[in-house]
This record gives sequence, structure tokens and C-alpha cells, in this order.
Amino acid sequence: MKKIVLFLLLISSAFVHAQTYSPNWESLDARPAPQWFKDAKFGIFIHWGVYSVPAWAPVGKDYAVYSKYSEWYWNRLVTDSSKVGKAFRAYHNSTYGPNFKYQDFAPLFKAELFNPEQWADVFKNAGAQYVVLTSKHHDGFALWPSAEAWNWNAADVGPHKDLAGELTNAVKEKGLHMGFYYSLYEWFNPLYKSDIDKYVSEHMMPQLKDLVNRYKPDIIWPDGEWEHPSETWKSTQFLAWLYNESPVKNTVVVNDRWGKETRSKHGGYYTTEYDIVHNEDASKKQFEHPWEECRGIGGSFGYNRNETLGDYETSDAVIHMLIQKVARGGNLLLDIGPAADGTIPVIMQQRLADMGAWLKTNGEAIFGTTATKQPSINGAWFTQKNMDLYVILTAKMDKPLTFDLATAPGKATLLGVNKKVTVSYRSGKCTINPLELYPNLPAGGYAWVIKLEGAAGK
Amino acid sequence: MKKIVLFLLLISSAFVHAQTYSPNWESLDARPAPQWFKDAKFGIFIHWGVYSVPAWAPVGKDYAVYSKYSEWYWNRLVTDSSKVGKAFRAYHNSTYGPNFKYQDFAPLFKAELFNPEQWADVFKNAGAQYVVLTSKHHDGFALWPSAEAWNWNAADVGPHKDLAGELTNAVKEKGLHMGFYYSLYEWFNPLYKSDIDKYVSEHMMPQLKDLVNRYKPDIIWPDGEWEHPSETWKSTQFLAWLYNESPVKNTVVVNDRWGKETRSKHGGYYTTEYDIVHNEDASKKQFEHPWEECRGIGGSFGYNRNETLGDYETSDAVIHMLIQKVARGGNLLLDIGPAADGTIPVIMQQRLADMGAWLKTNGEAIFGTTATKQPSINGAWFTQKNMDLYVILTAKMDKPLTFDLATAPGKATLLGVNKKVTVSYRSGKCTINPLELYPNLPAGGYAWVIKLEGAAGK
Amino acid sequence: MKKIVLFLLLISSAFVHAQTYSPNWESLDARPAPQWFKDAKFGIFIHWGVYSVPAWAPVGKDYAVYSKYSEWYWNRLVTDSSKVGKAFRAYHNSTYGPNFKYQDFAPLFKAELFNPEQWADVFKNAGAQYVVLTSKHHDGFALWPSAEAWNWNAADVGPHKDLAGELTNAVKEKGLHMGFYYSLYEWFNPLYKSDIDKYVSEHMMPQLKDLVNRYKPDIIWPDGEWEHPSETWKSTQFLAWLYNESPVKNTVVVNDRWGKETRSKHGGYYTTEYDIVHNEDASKKQFEHPWEECRGIGGSFGYNRNETLGDYETSDAVIHMLIQKVARGGNLLLDIGPAADGTIPVIMQQRLADMGAWLKTNGEAIFGTTATKQPSINGAWFTQKNMDLYVILTAKMDKPLTFDLATAPGKATLLGVNKKVTVSYRSGKCTINPLELYPNLPAGGYAWVIKLEGAAGK
Amino acid sequence: MKKIVLFLLLISSAFVHAQTYSPNWESLDARPAPQWFKDAKFGIFIHWGVYSVPAWAPVGKDYAVYSKYSEWYWNRLVTDSSKVGKAFRAYHNSTYGPNFKYQDFAPLFKAELFNPEQWADVFKNAGAQYVVLTSKHHDGFALWPSAEAWNWNAADVGPHKDLAGELTNAVKEKGLHMGFYYSLYEWFNPLYKSDIDKYVSEHMMPQLKDLVNRYKPDIIWPDGEWEHPSETWKSTQFLAWLYNESPVKNTVVVNDRWGKETRSKHGGYYTTEYDIVHNEDASKKQFEHPWEECRGIGGSFGYNRNETLGDYETSDAVIHMLIQKVARGGNLLLDIGPAADGTIPVIMQQRLADMGAWLKTNGEAIFGTTATKQPSINGAWFTQKNMDLYVILTAKMDKPLTFDLATAPGKATLLGVNKKVTVSYRSGKCTINPLELYPNLPAGGYAWVIKLEGAAGK
Repeated sequence: MKKIVLFLLLISSAFVHAQTYSPNWESLDARPAPQWFKDAKFGIFIHWGVYSVPAWAPVGKDYAVYSKYSEWYWNRLVTDSSKVGKAFRAYHNSTYGPNFKYQDFAPLFKAELFNPEQWADVFKNAGAQYVVLTSKHHDGFALWPSAEAWNWNAADVGPHKDLAGELTNAVKEKGLHMGFYYSLYEWFNPLYKSDIDKYVSEHMMPQLKDLVNRYKPDIIWPDGEWEHPSETWKSTQFLAWLYNESPVKNTVVVNDRWGKETRSKHGGYYTTEYDIVHNEDASKKQFEHPWEECRGIGGSFGYNRNETLGDYETSDAVIHMLIQKVARGGNLLLDIGPAADGTIPVIMQQRLADMGAWLKTNGEAIFGTTATKQPSINGAWFTQKNMDLYVILTAKMDKPLTFDLATAPGKATLLGVNKKVTVSYRSGKCTINPLELYPNLPAGGYAWVIKLEGAAGK
Repeated sequence: MKKIVLFLLLISSAFVHAQTYSPNWESLDARPAPQWFKDAKFGIFIHWGVYSVPAWAPVGKDYAVYSKYSEWYWNRLVTDSSKVGKAFRAYHNSTYGPNFKYQDFAPLFKAELFNPEQWADVFKNAGAQYVVLTSKHHDGFALWPSAEAWNWNAADVGPHKDLAGELTNAVKEKGLHMGFYYSLYEWFNPLYKSDIDKYVSEHMMPQLKDLVNRYKPDIIWPDGEWEHPSETWKSTQFLAWLYNESPVKNTVVVNDRWGKETRSKHGGYYTTEYDIVHNEDASKKQFEHPWEECRGIGGSFGYNRNETLGDYETSDAVIHMLIQKVARGGNLLLDIGPAADGTIPVIMQQRLADMGAWLKTNGEAIFGTTATKQPSINGAWFTQKNMDLYVILTAKMDKPLTFDLATAPGKATLLGVNKKVTVSYRSGKCTINPLELYPNLPAGGYAWVIKLEGAAGK
Repeated sequence: MKKIVLFLLLISSAFVHAQTYSPNWESLDARPAPQWFKDAKFGIFIHWGVYSVPAWAPVGKDYAVYSKYSEWYWNRLVTDSSKVGKAFRAYHNSTYGPNFKYQDFAPLFKAELFNPEQWADVFKNAGAQYVVLTSKHHDGFALWPSAEAWNWNAADVGPHKDLAGELTNAVKEKGLHMGFYYSLYEWFNPLYKSDIDKYVSEHMMPQLKDLVNRYKPDIIWPDGEWEHPSETWKSTQFLAWLYNESPVKNTVVVNDRWGKETRSKHGGYYTTEYDIVHNEDASKKQFEHPWEECRGIGGSFGYNRNETLGDYETSDAVIHMLIQKVARGGNLLLDIGPAADGTIPVIMQQRLADMGAWLKTNGEAIFGTTATKQPSINGAWFTQKNMDLYVILTAKMDKPLTFDLATAPGKATLLGVNKKVTVSYRSGKCTINPLELYPNLPAGGYAWVIKLEGAAGK
Repeated sequence: MKKIVLFLLLISSAFVHAQTYSPNWESLDARPAPQWFKDAKFGIFIHWGVYSVPAWAPVGKDYAVYSKYSEWYWNRLVTDSSKVGKAFRAYHNSTYGPNFKYQDFAPLFKAELFNPEQWADVFKNAGAQYVVLTSKHHDGFALWPSAEAWNWNAADVGPHKDLAGELTNAVKEKGLHMGFYYSLYEWFNPLYKSDIDKYVSEHMMPQLKDLVNRYKPDIIWPDGEWEHPSETWKSTQFLAWLYNESPVKNTVVVNDRWGKETRSKHGGYYTTEYDIVHNEDASKKQFEHPWEECRGIGGSFGYNRNETLGDYETSDAVIHMLIQKVARGGNLLLDIGPAADGTIPVIMQQRLADMGAWLKTNGEAIFGTTATKQPSINGAWFTQKNMDLYVILTAKMDKPLTFDLATAPGKATLLGVNKKVTVSYRSGKCTINPLELYPNLPAGGYAWVIKLEGAAGK
């Protein structure tokens, strides 16, 4: 009897129960996130497109986070009258001349060195479980042969390749989940600007369904939703189709960007972005609902050639970022910005490789875990899985650590090292002493994990 | 009383009577061609677009007429397996490399030297009465900021200018009629290929109406109609709108390319193209209905850099061509292919200037005339206007000319020379003797016109 | 006996007598111009190079003749502070941006459609007897693989072809004489600017000799000599080598541009350029010494895309120009400016073809003739050959022409027409009446030639 | 008295004694290397030029070390018939087409983001003491406005900047020594190929002297010397000038690449390159004479976009490389390959920053040290300075280390940590125990240094 239940649980963890959803938020929101996504914890975000040709944005303290996004190049160039727009225009005009416009960059997006298998290797070796590619950003340029974006997609202009398709094949081949970012709005599409309803029904909806039907992605990651309510975008209709009829109805997961009123309220998992999107405090709010933080390794999502080493997060920082998001119950969608030639800047490969090395030893404390009631005490972070508690130390292991624990833990081990860790437990206080393990700490100085067996949930 | 009638006639000659047309051929075909068009006789056709960048097609006797059209570059490159396609591909691959595709040419279409006023001057001085610009050819690239061709039009990519609008203003400013060629089909538009009905209703129809509403053209010159019947193209609906509601309902004229069954049957004036389009003999058939022959000055409509002097018609030839078409009741739409930089190749300016010089003296025998019963006898061509007959000699005036004429003509003069010409008339035979006029023939050796007053219709 | 003399004369007319020249002007100037050159009368000048890429200069009455030379583009751009320089910079900066410099044009000089055989055909059919190509203009860019201009020549950059060599072969194959324009100075060559002596000995002299040795040209046409006296240029040393030792010592001819003091004084034939180079009146001065006028068909020597039809000379004008120069004892070197793609603009082909058609009929009055004592009377121009006098009428043949003649002429004929012309002769006055020939004038309205046999030298 | 000696020693360590050298190896080789160079230990090599535009070479085990140098692109393309050349050509032809040649890349070398101050910061923060820039590589393209390379240098084409000059200023401003790599030969320079003596005297010699006189570099780093003996290159004459007369006669240092017979024999310091240049064992031979190993961070000196993370050395590896070279008495010249846009690939910045962080703590054991008799024992490396011995551990500090030492050392400390290290000394055996220092090891896991005071030279 018990086994049957377990078996059913296993099935339900892999797939969402087949059922029929209605095109309204009450029904749609009731669909649970697929277990694979909740377990996955770590994905790779990819911003790649025509903006990867100029690949430029200002850097430094004088510019706000959003101002440093190179993928906003076109918009900054033509609609931004602030100092940010001025910086973009100054660079553009002196480099390309004022008669050269954003669209003229498209043929220079060549992707001549694009090697999707090598990309997928990089992602796999990073320990990532899923990949989200900008199938279309706000400029409307599609990375696949989209009929709705004729002559404004990578198969028609520039690379002359189905970038989305080639990457999907390679990523799935490695056993990772493939997903697509998709911008609902298009800054300068005249149809969008003149007739939003027609845009949605004739352009956006068929394009989005084409994406789903062609590549069968496990994630749909809309964005650019903020100018209209979800009703205008017909989001609930799309989701009802996606959940009831599409080829990925049982595996797909979506985010919460479906209309200006939906973030952290409706759709699938909640999204944060440099923790600045939501009005509420992301650290407190989001324990109960699946969520995901997206971040660039540098200060831009799209590649920014203007960034130097100081603009990139260190490997320590990105690993700690992952730990903190996971300890709070979230996922991390870490972004890379490939170059126009199809290469992933090697510094990004380095960060991902460092994550992969750390996860190879410590992934047990990340994948498939859930948050604990108190994510962090005294600089240590906690995750749990089954009956076990993982204590993750992100600073130097130079003194004993004490924290509350309901009952005495079982065996304590340092992940990656075949030695027991001494634990003392008294009056609900647990103290562990990692110092005794020197000099046998595992390689890589990023973070260490002590596993306390049987201590979870206590 | 007589004056009033005349006044009404004058009105009716300038405008088509306002009335309501039904969306069927019977009703639409009943609309007479506007008098301005029938009187105009000579227009300038302009093929300009992305194909003006490679500006290449094969030349020489080994290639059929159609094979030499540079505006078919894209199509030849990708769908033509014959020796024609091979020639295009050989040129393309050795010059641009195989990874460079047609769409990548668009940013190189710069039009940096485009001067619409100078163009309009050239047309005006050529004696042309109207201009027909390829607003969109089969590649789908629009020369105006067409919302339906976002990022595939000259305002978005390449010139970054409203070429159609700028030229329309300049042409109208000179008092010429402005018109637009418009390709119904688009070779590679995925919407056209997958869903013709949606293509027609969502793409073509709004695009065509936008063209009419924006620029108020006097001519709509569809093409690329041959893959579908007019019913599919919804041609009669469009024409009913054009004739009943559009801003040009009283002045507009259209051609006969509205569906695969319509040429020389329905729509407005009939079109010929190197006299090879119709199955029937153009020289006999088309006296009763307005018609127009279109021709390149060279062997291509779009600019072909591969053409040398031998590939161009001489000034004599184009003037004779005009004379022959007009004598048969038709118009001539003579094509020029501007370069990608916005200049009209000077050889084309030369041909047009020569026509203009000839028409300045002899235009009386062309504009506003009608065909006679016998267009040509013994190498002479005839036109008539009001009561007068014009005898146009296109070969050397080296002997007396005799032809049938019902009654004796009045005064005979050589146009451009202030001297009478001797005419003898006996038994229905009229003989004129231009020899006496030497050495006072008008400058320019192309053709001479003897006007016989009071001899028309006889 | 007579035949032997004639034979020797024929030899001497084809070749200059072999003798040794000393490197001083007295000796060098004593060398007669080869007879072939004096007989040739009509040559084609070709300005082609990196400047053919921007191919731009201002046009119109506000600019002096020299200001319209597109081949001065680089110089105007960087050293000219006048309104001329401003016009060039305004065009350049708005079209290419200020960070794009002249040298960056070189790879865009592709010559992808260059067909030397077709060029040679055009020249041959124009009736030209020789060709002078800009082997190197003031920018220092060589059209052949010149070791002295490594990576700044057409074999290394851009066309990647030996343009000079390919054209030389094709031109010689047609039986025409091949020659090279060669700029002594180079505006911006640092060696020229810092060490003129080293420039001359290490750069210029070996480069010029390489040109002679490689291609065996019949003409060396120096230019850009005006900043230094011939002594600095070592001109006499070069010419002594050229006349005594070079492979073309017996056939070569040179012009008079060998130092700032040499024009119309030393070297080979004298050069004029829009009749504005010399201080003296070209029409009076130059009867005794061979001379040559160079001219563009348009207002620029290098191709100028900015020119419209009005900027080009008519066929009438270029034919009349040839007649006038020849009647005054000179040659005409008529310039064409091919495009960067290797094509000769068709309008230039047209002018040359018209000259060829006229010369086919009337070349007898041009080639091999000499000037008469009075080149022109009453609008008629005169040339002579052997015993015959040629009367060339460049205006309408609409009345009898009377002119002084020492004795009665023999047979009079209109060239191109198989009919005699009536001549009356009385008291040293000769009257010819071309009117009787109508309507049998030869085709082409440019100029007519009446040949008076036995009237020359009288 | 002692102080005066010390003072003189200090002077002599900064400057080479002024004396006159004769143009022969015996005299020139007697000049000692300037002390600054011997103390400097770590320099940055920069390969940047036209080859940074294609920035491509094959990677992987199938290719030998030299085959992966992207700076050999041009040579591989046109002269290499092996599989290496085939790989280059395959890439080139498919990416750029066969009609696009190496020289056509020059205008695409834009350096639009070049920031010499930021570069100098990167070098300074890396701990480097000197910089060696490819002023001219084998392609002959100069990074400064070299009169001898007119229109084939970065001031004339592409960047339109004096890259060498701008970088020199920035580097010197930071207090680092500036030097220039200079290729004696030029693969395809026709002067080099046809007349080596003239090439040397008229091209190379003035160009090299111009470099010295303009920028006053402290290092001249010739290369490409192997096709001729030093006599042909006139190397001894140049060096006599450099040491006796040039503005840097007292500070300059040169390497040993002055002719095909000179490496490891004549000139200044000896050079190794992936330890594969010399026939002899670099590890044994070069203790007595200053030497320097040059290396790329990746497998290429010039930037190679084809390299992925696996092709780059880790930070550990480059730090260990420095340690090993220094322990053997050599310097390390670590190479970076900036991109054509003027940026230093961030992965290279990362490696340099890691070196800088390590050197900040441990530089005492590197700079100004000399080799000991036994560079390495049991995985530890040794250097000495003054009276102190540095023991550098490059592997995990997980057990006591024992090595021979003549007498007992004084105080032992771990650099970067304010704690004493226990040392035991008995019978010429010294044992140190770093284990006691855990967990207080300094940050960065690359290598640790234990300083044994008073133990050097024993």
C-alpha cells in the first residue's frame, strides 16, 4: 500500500496531473508547478540577438541597474532623452554614424562560430538543469524562422540559422530542460502600437503557439507584459491552451509575467530581477510559491563589450547567490550574453565552470531541496531534503557554528570529504565544528556544506 | 448651350463621373478610364529596391527576356535550377559568398544621393505625364513605412527614408501624375505561402489601402497576380472601395493585373510587356480598350550593372517605340532602374532627355491623340487629334510618301519648322514631299511629324 | 630608288631613330615625338582608383573646374579649408562618419565586374588609338603589384588583381598603344614629405622603371610635378634611361610634366588641361610642337556619382572638341572614370561609341593629318594629309561656305556619301555648296567633312 | 664607507654603466642586463594587430603548439599546404569568401573601445613590472604612424590612432616599463623578399630607430630573425647605436633574437617559448644568464575567438608558471591578445587579476629574487633575496615539508598571515610544518609562501 502511494507520488512529481483548466486565473493558478522545476533550482538564461552586435551599454555607478542592459540599445537610442539615452547615442553616433540604424545591425549578427553542442556542454557542466533562451526580445527579432517576423528573424537575416531550434536540440540531448523567454510587446512594431488587439490575435498568439508546437519547450518565460493587463494579452486563453492542449501540457511551467497586474499574483512561478521588480520584500514573501531570480553575471543581460572584470560577479558571488536563492525556496536563472559571433565570452564559461565544480561536490544540498523555516542564521544558510538538513557556510570556516535545532541530529559530514564532523547538541542548540577538518577541505574556496542527517524539519 | 456642353465635357475628361460601382467585374469594367490617362501616352516606370544593390542579371543572346530582369535576383538565387539560376548563383557566390543572403543586402541600399526633385525634373523634361514607382516588388520590400512590412521597408532599413512619399511630393509638384506598382504576391512571405486568405485580408489589403490613403496616387499598377484568381485576391472588393470611397475615386486608373484570369479582360487598362504577355497579337487586339506597354530602356527593369551600351535601347529606338504604341492607341511606360545610391544612371537620363527634346517639338502628335484605323503605312505612323492627322516618319525623309486618304487635307506643316509642306491629293491618294524642307529639318534625327490639318477621321 | 626612300620614311615614321641621349634637356628635347603618336590624335584617359569608391565631388557653377575633380577627394577632405573642402567633408561625414578615413575605402574598391576585353572593345570602337591609365595617382595607390606601394596597391587590397597588367594585355591585343599616367608626388607619403631625395631615388625611380619594364608602355604621362624642379625629380636621368636603355626606347613618348619649370618647354609633347594650365594662349602657341589636351567627358576625371546628365558633354561637343584640337595640331586625350565595380558608366560608353561612329566615316580627316595655317574660318575647321585638304563643318550645313585657297582644288567629296560636291573657285576664293547633298547626308548629326583633293598646303 | 658602496650599487642596479660598446658580439654581450629587468620577473606581452580581426586559429590536440597561433593567420592562409593551412582556409573562405584577403581586414580593426588607461590599470594590478607590445608583427602592420609602413599602420588604416604611443604613455604613467616586440622580417613585404640588404638599411633600420626615438622603450624584443644571420640584419650596428647613442642607452634591455645564430648566445636576455625554442634543456641551462619565457594565457598569442575555457590556462597554472620560471632564474612574459575592438577579453583580465592578488601577498618571494642552487625539491619551489629564503608551496599544504639546508634558519613566517611557522632543523635537514596555520591560510588557493629568514645562500 505504501509503495503504491510512493509510486503515485513519483508520477506526480514528474508530471502535472492531467486535468482541464479554464481560461481564468482561479483555475489556472490552481495548477501546481511541475516538480521538475521545483527541484531544478538552477537554470541558464541567454540573452542573444541583434543587440549582441553593438553589445554596448554604459557602466559604472552613475547608471542605474536597468540603464546598463545592452539589450535595450535600440530603445535607448531612439526614445530615451535622459543621460542614459545620451550615452547610448554618443557611443552609437561616433562608432557607426547617425545614418546607421539598429535594423542595419541585423546582417552583422553572423553567429559564424556558434556551436550549440559546446554551449550545451557548458550548461551541463555548470550543473544547470534548464535553459531559457530569448526567442524574441522587445525588438521583435526572432531567433527562429518565425512566419510572423519575416525578414526580422535569425533564419532570414544574419546567421541564416534556426538558432532556437539548434540550441533546443543540443540542450535536450544533454538531458536539460529547454525554455523560451518571449517578449509580449514589441517596442516599435507598428501593429503593436496601432492595434493591440490585432497584434495579440494575429501576431503574438500564433507566434507563441508556433514556438510551443515547434520546439516543445518546458518553460515559457514571457516578459514585456507591463503595458497591458493580462486580459488584453489574452493570457488566460493562451495558458488554457498550453495546459490543456499543447504538446507540453504536462511538463511545461511558466512565470508570472502575463499582464501588468500579474507579477507575484498569477501564472506560474514568481519572478524577481535584481530583487527590484516587486514592491514587496522578496526575502520574506516568497517562501510558499515557487519563484526564480534572474541575474546577469555582469551588469547586463545582453553582452556588453564595455564591461571590464570589475563589472562581473565573482564565482564566489554567483555561487553564494545560488545558495541564498535556494535557501529561500527560489531558483536562480543566471544569465549569459553570447557574442554576435556565436561564442560565449570565456569569462562567463569560467563562472559557469566554477559553479559546476562546486555543484559536483555540493549539488546534493541544492537540487531537490526545499527551504527551511529560517533560511539563514549567523552567516550560514540552510536547505533540507528528505530527512536531512544542509548547513551551507559561505564564509571562512574558522570557528564553530551554533544554531537552534529541535532535536539532536544524526551523522554529520562535510560534503566532498570522507570524514565525520563533530556535532554537539544541547538544549535545542546545535554546534558544529568544521575547524577539525583542516587541511582536508574540498577544493574551491566558495562554500562548504555540512550535512546533518535526520535533522530536517526539526 | 454649346459652351455648357463643352464645359461638361471638359469636366468629364478630367474626372470620371461619380457613381457607385459594385464589387463585380461587370460593374467595375464599366468605369471608363479617366481621360487624363488616355491623353497622357507616356509615363516613367521605376524599379528600385533591395535588388538595386546587387543590380545584376545575365545578359546576351543566350538568355530569354525574363531571365535578364535583375529584380528577380532573389528568386533566381534560391528557386531557379536552370542555367539562369546557375548564372545568378555563380555571380552571387563569388562576389558575396554563399553565407550572404538577399536580405543582408537591405542595409546596403543607402540612397545617399537620392534627390527626388532632380528625379522629377528628369521625368518632366522627358515629356512624361505620369510616374509609376515599385512601391513593393515581389520580394515584399516596401519603399514606404508600411506597417505591414515592418523592418522590411526603406524607412526602417537601408535608406531610412520614405522614398515613396518623397518622390510623390516631388512628382506632383511638377504637375505629373503619380502612381504605384504593387506586387500582389510575395515570393517568400510565409503568410502568403501558408494562408493566402489571411495574407490577402490581413497583409495585402491594409497595405494597399494604406498606400492609397497616404499618397493618393492616380495609378495603381498591381502585378504578381498570376498564382490566384481575382476572387482570391479580393480584387473586386478593393476596386469597389477604390472607385467608391477612396480619396482618389475620381482620378485613379488601374491596370488589368488583378487575378490570373484578368489580363486583357478586366480591371482598367490592359498591359503588355515586351509584347509577350498576352496570347493574342497586341498590335491588332487593343485598339478599343486603353492599354499600356511597359519596357526597360535596357533589358532589365531593375538596374543591371552587367549591361553595357549594347544592352540599352538607342534614343531612336525608344522614341520609335513611343510612336508605335501611341499610333496603335496605347501608352508607353518606359522603365528606369535607379542605382542603390539613389542616382538615375546617366545613360537613362540621356534617353529621357532625348525623348523630351523630341516631344518638345513633336508632342502635339502624341499627347491627347487617338489611333487611326490604320496605324502604319509604308513606314509612316499616324495619329489624330481633333480634326488633324499626324504623319510620323521614323525613317530617313528621303522620298515622297503616298497613302490613302478619304478627302483632300488642308494645310500641311512640318512640326518644329515654320514652313509649309507640299501635299498633292488625287483619287483618294495623298502624297507628301518632305524633301523640299531640307536643310531645314528640325534638330534631332529621330522622327519627323507632318501635320495635315483637317485630315483626321477621313 | 623612290621606293627605298619611302620604305625608310615608313620605318622612321613608326620608330624614332636609335641614338644616344644625354641626361640634359637640350639633348632629350631633340628627340622627335614618334610618328605614331603624332598620327594618333585620339586617346582615352582613364582615372580609376580608390577615389572611385566615394566617387564624389561637388558640381555646379559655384565650383571651379579643379574643385570638381573627384580624384582629389582625399586631399580635399584633409587639407582644404575652403568651401570646396567643406563640401567634401560634409558629404563624407554624413555618408561614412568621421571615423572612416580615405584609406578605409581601399577594400571597397572591388572591380568585381572588371572586363578588360570589353573595355578595350569600347576604346577600339571609339576610334581611339591609345590609352593612358592612372597607374598611380596623387594618393600613391598603384593599380599594379608595385613593390614600392606594398599593401597600397590593387593587387594587395581591394580588387586583388593586376589591373594595369590586365588592361595592358587587352589594349595591346586590340592593336592600340598603351600608356600610363604616373603621379610624381604623393600627397601624404611620409617619405615624400620628409625626404624628397630619398623618395625620388628609393621609391619613385624604381617604381617608374618597374612600370616600364613590366608593361612596356608606349606613353609615360607624369603629373604632380609642380612642387619641385625637374632636377629634384631626376627627370633627365630617367628620360635618358628611357630613351637609351628601356625596352620601349624606340616607341615611347612622354609629356612635358617633369618639373615645375618644364610644361610647354621640355620633355615630350606639351599638355593642356581645360586650356587652363598654360599661361599662354594654347590656340596660338602650339602649332609647331606636338601637344595634347586632356578632358573629362563630365566635369571630373575620376568618376563622380554626383554628376547628372547636364554635367556631361554631349556627343556633339566631344566630337567638336576632337576636331578643334586636331585642326590646331593637337591630340585629344578624352577621359573616362570607371566605377569601383569595374564598369565604365554607360553614358561614357555612349559618348565613345558616338565618336567611333563619326570617326568610322570621317576618321580620314583626323588620323595622320596635320594642322593647316589657319585652323578655322567661318565656323569650318581644316586639316590636311598628303595633298588633300579636309573641310570640317561642325554646324548645320545650310549655306555655301567660302574660304581662301591658293589654287583650285581637284575633286570634292562629302565623306561617307558617294557623291561629288560642287566647288567653285575664283580669284583665290573657294566656295563649296553642301546644300545640294540633302537629303543624303551621312547619319549622325555631329559634323560633316568635305574632302578637297589636291588642295592641301595651298 | 659602506654606505657609499651601497649607494653606488643602487645606482648601478638601476642603470647600466655608461660605456662605449663596439658593434660586435663580444663587446655587446659584455653589457650586463639592467638590474630593473632582472628584478622585474613578470611582464605582460601583447599581441594585437590586423590578425585580431579574424582572431581565429584551430584548437585541440590535433594541432601542434605553433599551429594554434592566430597571429599567423595570413601566413597559414597563403603559404601553408598542410592540414593547418587547410583549416585556416576552410574557416576563412566560408566566413569571408575567397575574394576577401587579409589586407581587407585592416579597416575592420577599429579599436573603438580601446582605453589605454584601463589597460595599464589591468597590468599594474596584475603585479606586472613591464609591458611588451607587438609594435609590428610578421605581417608588417605597424601599431604606430611608421613612415616606413605608410597606409599599413594603425594610424593610417583602421583605428586611426597611434596605439603604440597611447599605450606607452599610459603604461609609463603607472610606473611600469614599456617595451616593443618588433619583427625583423615581414613575410610578404616585396622589398624583404627581393632585396634583403635594402630592406634592412632602408626599411627596418630607420623604422626600428624611429620606434626607439619616438617612444623611448626600455625593451626591444626582436623576433622573426631566423631566416638570416645577425650580420645580414646589421644587428650589432643597431645594438651599438642603441647602447651608445640612443635615448634609452642606460635603461634598455633586449632579447637574444638578432639572427639565426644568436638565440641563447648573443644579445640580451635569452628567450624561451613554450620551452620549445632551444635545443637544450631550459631548466638546466639558463641559471647564469637572464632569460624570459613567453606564453599565452590561451594557446595563441593573438586573440583566438575559437578558444573555449578549456583552452585557457587556469589562474593556478599561470601563477605556478611564474613561480617555476622565477625559481629557475627567469622572467615570465605572459601574453594577452586584445580584441579588434580594443578590449582585453575579460577572462584574461581575470587571470591577471588573480596573479595580482597573489603577488600582492606573495610578491616579496618573486620580485628582486634570484634562483637558488636547487630550484625545486619535493614539490616546493625556492627563491632567495638578501639573506632570506622563500619556500613556495604550489600544492596543498597538507603535510610537513623537509629539505636540505646548510644551517638553521631564523624566523619562519607564512606570507600574508601574521603568524609564525614552526621550523625544526637537524643535521642539515629543515622541516617546516604549515599544517598548524589552518584555518588561517591567506585567501586564494594558488600557492603559499613560507619565508625563512637568514636561510638564503646556505
